[in-house]
Amino acid sequence: MARALIDPPLEPARYPFAHPVRVRFAETDAMGVVHHAAYIPWLEEARVELLASAGHSYAEVHDGGLDLAVVEIQVRYRRAVRFGDPVVVHAGMAAASRSVIQLAYLVVAAGEVAASAVTTHACVDPQGRPLRVPDWLGALAAGPTALRPA
Amino acid sequence: MARALIDPPLEPARYPFAHPVRVRFAETDAMGVVHHAAYIPWLEEARVELLASAGHSYAEVHDGGLDLAVVEIQVRYRRAVRFGDPVVVHAGMAAASRSVIQLAYLVVAAGEVAASAVTTHACVDPQGRPLRVPDWLGALAAGPTALRPA
Amino acid sequence: MARALIDPPLEPARYPFAHPVRVRFAETDAMGVVHHAAYIPWLEEARVELLASAGHSYAEVHDGGLDLAVVEIQVRYRRAVRFGDPVVVHAGMAAASRSVIQLAYLVVAAGEVAASAVTTHACVDPQGRPLRVPDWLGALAAGPTALRPA
Amino acid sequence: MARALIDPPLEPARYPFAHPVRVRFAETDAMGVVHHAAYIPWLEEARVELLASAGHSYAEVHDGGLDLAVVEIQVRYRRAVRFGDPVVVHAGMAAASRSVIQLAYLVVAAGEVAASAVTTHACVDPQGRPLRVPDWLGALAAGPTALRPA
Repeated sequence: MARALIDPPLEPARYPFAHPVRVRFAETDAMGVVHHAAYIPWLEEARVELLASAGHSYAEVHDGGLDLAVVEIQVRYRRAVRFGDPVVVHAGMAAASRSVIQLAYLVVAAGEVAASAVTTHACVDPQGRPLRVPDWLGALAAGPTALRPA
Repeated sequence: MARALIDPPLEPARYPFAHPVRVRFAETDAMGVVHHAAYIPWLEEARVELLASAGHSYAEVHDGGLDLAVVEIQVRYRRAVRFGDPVVVHAGMAAASRSVIQLAYLVVAAGEVAASAVTTHACVDPQGRPLRVPDWLGALAAGPTALRPA
Repeated sequence: MARALIDPPLEPARYPFAHPVRVRFAETDAMGVVHHAAYIPWLEEARVELLASAGHSYAEVHDGGLDLAVVEIQVRYRRAVRFGDPVVVHAGMAAASRSVIQLAYLVVAAGEVAASAVTTHACVDPQGRPLRVPDWLGALAAGPTALRPA
Repeated sequence: MARALIDPPLEPARYPFAHPVRVRFAETDAMGVVHHAAYIPWLEEARVELLASAGHSYAEVHDGGLDLAVVEIQVRYRRAVRFGDPVVVHAGMAAASRSVIQLAYLVVAAGEVAASAVTTHACVDPQGRPLRVPDWLGALAAGPTALRPA
């Protein structure tokens, strides 16, 4: 599934979850805008909060012996983000199979779409060995944390 | 073109350029391996060095009024990288059109393929306005900096 | 003054300003706790917000031709911070002279003092040339943004 | 000892170890120079390499049950570093007691002193509990890895 990345919708209303991010000056670069690598931890932060909002805090999941390893990321940068722009990362579960899950994201800065992204994750145990996607996690792709239909 | 991302070859010999990277402890995370966001600056560093190796240093290009804005990144993580692993980023120009260029990368850690990646870039002026890809840059996709045929 | 760094008070009540920070997983390291370098942008974020709370947003100050260059930082790490810990950065203006200002910080994680810090800043123009500390900025070291007496 | 931080010498010749660093574009900020937080991982990288040069690789030390926790950092920024500047971090052991060690650093960029720094470290076991500084580590403050007399 990792190869057939979904196209993240460009309408915030399609996403069930919205997470505000504060741009840090340290995240800007000498082109005067936020460096492209800085978005990646924003996506991660939104993902952690989305799972927590569904009752699965990072600590609980991790202490239960499960980690979500990132197996693929794809980000399309559509507009520069500036220091001071209010940023909201919209996120939703896009798909789940036996082996991976996918989330989609829309980064909105100062009211404009700045980037869209997809991340794909495999489940691993504390030693990094692959695990099947547990039922509760797969179910999130079909519930209130899922991307909304167009 | 950004939509039709190429599949980066998995053989280092297909890449014309190899750039060694030293993993920083600060780049690891609490899973004990390098955090996925840390690879992005490695790709950038390899890209800058590849262009410099072709006679186009960042300073010269930038002072000539051209910046390469990142419009898309795609990274597939295939194997964890650990602190202490010697890392080499293999890189090559994958494609060029009037409006964008693409580069492919293979991250090899401790002798094993750890990740593959593609980045897509648009040319912009110092104010961030789009420019056509200049001839010298497009030509790099067909010369010694290009990915080698299988 | 940069040589005579003040000792940041260890009581949150001595600080006029409190800024919550969300720990990012990307900020942890392979020792399982937040990497020491990650605190530095937290201090910066608190500093920017403290100035904004006093009516001097970064954009306004910057557009007025003034930047605050960091000339010294000192951080004492007292206790590890873990992913998931709620973090609050307490901050206050500690001193001001003609040439520099100093701020003090107390990083509190999960209710415990995790670090204390001092940063010293010089005023510079957009070309990085030194400027005198303007009156409005020096005055902040004696008003509601100043550290409170013991 | 953490309170009586030494003054790092400003002459590179006083340092026994020199470690080249490549500035990453991601390390610059919107002021057009390297962000002050980016120096901290450079110091760490030089520290790791200094210990490795003395026969104590990170892996060996860590696998032996010892980690060096950072308990204090102090950095004085003397000159901006720009992308493209060749950077060398000079480093040396400055002091050792039963409970902590200190290292001094001089960051030289494009041939000019850009920053000086001191870091203080405590020894901890894998659970983060304090350990006495082992003899081999204390001895480094008096041998070829020590700062040289003026």
